[in-house]
Amino acid sequence: MAVNLHTPAASELKPISGIALGVAQAHIRKPHHTDLLVICLSSEATVSGVFTQNRFCAAPVQICKAHLAQSVRDNQPIRALLVNTGNANAGTGEQGFQNAMTTCQQLAEQMHCAPSQILPFSTGVILEPLPADRIVAALPAALADLREDNWLSGAQAIMTTDTLPKAASRQVRIGEKTVSITGISKGAGMIHPNMATMLGFVATDAKIPQAVLDSMLKHAVSRSFNCITVDGDTSTNDSFILVASGAVDVGITDKDSAACDALLSAITSLAEELAQKIVRDGEGATKFITITVEEGKDAAECRLIAYAIARSPLVKTAFFASDPNLGRILAAIGYAGVNDLDVGKVNLYLDDVWVTRAGGRHSDYREEDGQRVMKQDEITVRVTLARGSQSATIWTCDLSHDYVSINADYRS
Amino acid sequence: MAVNLHTPAASELKPISGIALGVAQAHIRKPHHTDLLVICLSSEATVSGVFTQNRFCAAPVQICKAHLAQSVRDNQPIRALLVNTGNANAGTGEQGFQNAMTTCQQLAEQMHCAPSQILPFSTGVILEPLPADRIVAALPAALADLREDNWLSGAQAIMTTDTLPKAASRQVRIGEKTVSITGISKGAGMIHPNMATMLGFVATDAKIPQAVLDSMLKHAVSRSFNCITVDGDTSTNDSFILVASGAVDVGITDKDSAACDALLSAITSLAEELAQKIVRDGEGATKFITITVEEGKDAAECRLIAYAIARSPLVKTAFFASDPNLGRILAAIGYAGVNDLDVGKVNLYLDDVWVTRAGGRHSDYREEDGQRVMKQDEITVRVTLARGSQSATIWTCDLSHDYVSINADYRS
Repeated sequence: MAVNLHTPAASELKPISGIALGVAQAHIRKPHHTDLLVICLSSEATVSGVFTQNRFCAAPVQICKAHLAQSVRDNQPIRALLVNTGNANAGTGEQGFQNAMTTCQQLAEQMHCAPSQILPFSTGVILEPLPADRIVAALPAALADLREDNWLSGAQAIMTTDTLPKAASRQVRIGEKTVSITGISKGAGMIHPNMATMLGFVATDAKIPQAVLDSMLKHAVSRSFNCITVDGDTSTNDSFILVASGAVDVGITDKDSAACDALLSAITSLAEELAQKIVRDGEGATKFITITVEEGKDAAECRLIAYAIARSPLVKTAFFASDPNLGRILAAIGYAGVNDLDVGKVNLYLDDVWVTRAGGRHSDYREEDGQRVMKQDEITVRVTLARGSQSATIWTCDLSHDYVSINADYRS
Repeated sequence: MAVNLHTPAASELKPISGIALGVAQAHIRKPHHTDLLVICLSSEATVSGVFTQNRFCAAPVQICKAHLAQSVRDNQPIRALLVNTGNANAGTGEQGFQNAMTTCQQLAEQMHCAPSQILPFSTGVILEPLPADRIVAALPAALADLREDNWLSGAQAIMTTDTLPKAASRQVRIGEKTVSITGISKGAGMIHPNMATMLGFVATDAKIPQAVLDSMLKHAVSRSFNCITVDGDTSTNDSFILVASGAVDVGITDKDSAACDALLSAITSLAEELAQKIVRDGEGATKFITITVEEGKDAAECRLIAYAIARSPLVKTAFFASDPNLGRILAAIGYAGVNDLDVGKVNLYLDDVWVTRAGGRHSDYREEDGQRVMKQDEITVRVTLARGSQSATIWTCDLSHDYVSINADYRS
């Protein structure tokens, strides 16, 4: 069902010097299922991360935040990311915290580092105890599998309801050196920013100081993973991590470095592709929809309106049905919460078709033109507000029968 | 598919002295379909109304607000409500406004009153021109049909995707007199408060001064129609009207009148029943779900959490599947927006089953107990926050395959 999404060839994914990936079957929820990923980082690597703002954030998210802070404070590098699927370790109280710490301790022991040098990630069912023993038992197999050209296996190992693995690479020429960036992501349901049920890991071989990396992460996330929604549900476990292995020194010392722009642009572009892949593989998705709101007073009100459209079940089912029932989009604009919006100035476009003008149906609009666009599998909705010069763009998918089926059956 | 909802017998619906209803076929969207309702009011009647807060509110909503204000200012009573289905007259710009005014003028002419004494209501498809000529042509038939015992026909005439008509009555003994209250409502999709795609008309034969009626309306709506959600979409056309015909004088002069409490309680109870009927007939609904959030600092944060649960597509599909995947409820609590919530103090109950304690799974919780409750067609979710003494209750339904089917096919 995924919309224009394809599994990349393993050879398309550039190895990142200093970053190795290993996978294993830990039988966390289902037997004979690769559900464990270890990503080992060179001791030169810098790491930056952002996490869900859900108050019920999972135990591993709390531990990641603490370990990242400790790493920066003590100048003790993060050495590995430990990722499991099948169980979110969320809503699990104090025991969940201890289970996650147990897995960190065991991996740290085998890697001869401190537990605080491990970042744990979990995704899957909430409210069930994490089987830490099974994860620990599978660690040797994952470590034995470590390879720098193992990104596709890594992308496959973190899938839950995803139908396809999500991975991509970029290369940038900076001076006389080539910098590579490779990333993987997962997520299909419970997708709404800040963040999505979503894991994203992006690594580059460039050498990037911590403060610059943190600023790059914020920039890239705000233009990618924080611009998508599938169902409006914000997960307990969302995490996005940017790693710079340090193998290639292109002279980045601060964020105004000449080299920074090109690299940041490539990282952001890669993050956007990985985020869009999540929407393309949205649960039950049959359409990929770009929503752009322009001429707002500020970006925040543009996002408010874009998300109201993107979250509306009525708008989403109309896209599924290829039905140009576009009044539903106006209704969503109207209830988005921009309370001084003058709807008499709002224009609505569907790709190249001008649907409403000055708040009412455009006199030239014909149903068959709307119908033509609605039948496409990629559609752009554009709204102009005539209030200012700011804009926002987000990506979403439609709401289909399969969304209901997938989520009614997810645990069974 | 409606959950424990039945068509009332016409005889259960008490006629309200001074209020007559007439219906007709205006062929607005479909042929051979009763789609027009006129409710005529005695010249003694007082009228109060609340309307959608959607910025794209429909032309009839704008006119209703203006006519109600003019009626109070000029002390010129509202004489009729004119309701059509099949077309929302929203997103129709200046022409939509004129079309609605045309229908008011024509009805006013036949009733020998001013156009400003008519309140127009429309529900149906957005963004299509209102066929005012067809409505005007059907007015004589509706007026010829006027009867005080015609409430069931009225309830049937305002249905859109509703599967059953929604109507109910109450009677209250006040002193030596009996006061009757009868109301009808419609709505099944695009239901989210402030207000829902929802029309509600409640009439009593009591004599109630304008200021008291306004205060009763606010009280009743805040505990009924503003406590429901089907799909989180707030319509362009929602309207709730409370009419007091003035036929029975029970000495209500101000809102502290002794008679007021009993009457207000009956009106609120009726409004609650009518609002719940909308949820019971929610598009594709198979479950009726009550969500109560307790021990909040204020009612607003309780409502925030209750609505996050009620709107979550993941929670709603789990109810549809009778799957006690209750971590999804925790996730919704976590992202509701109560940013200082201590999740370590949150308890979750499903009917009589204690699911989570102190933010984690209760040690006594067994999946089969959750399963038992999830299989019921009426379920109460109760959340305690341990932050204060305020609470809120709302009602919603599940998200099923039929919701998608109904909204993918609505216009065809």
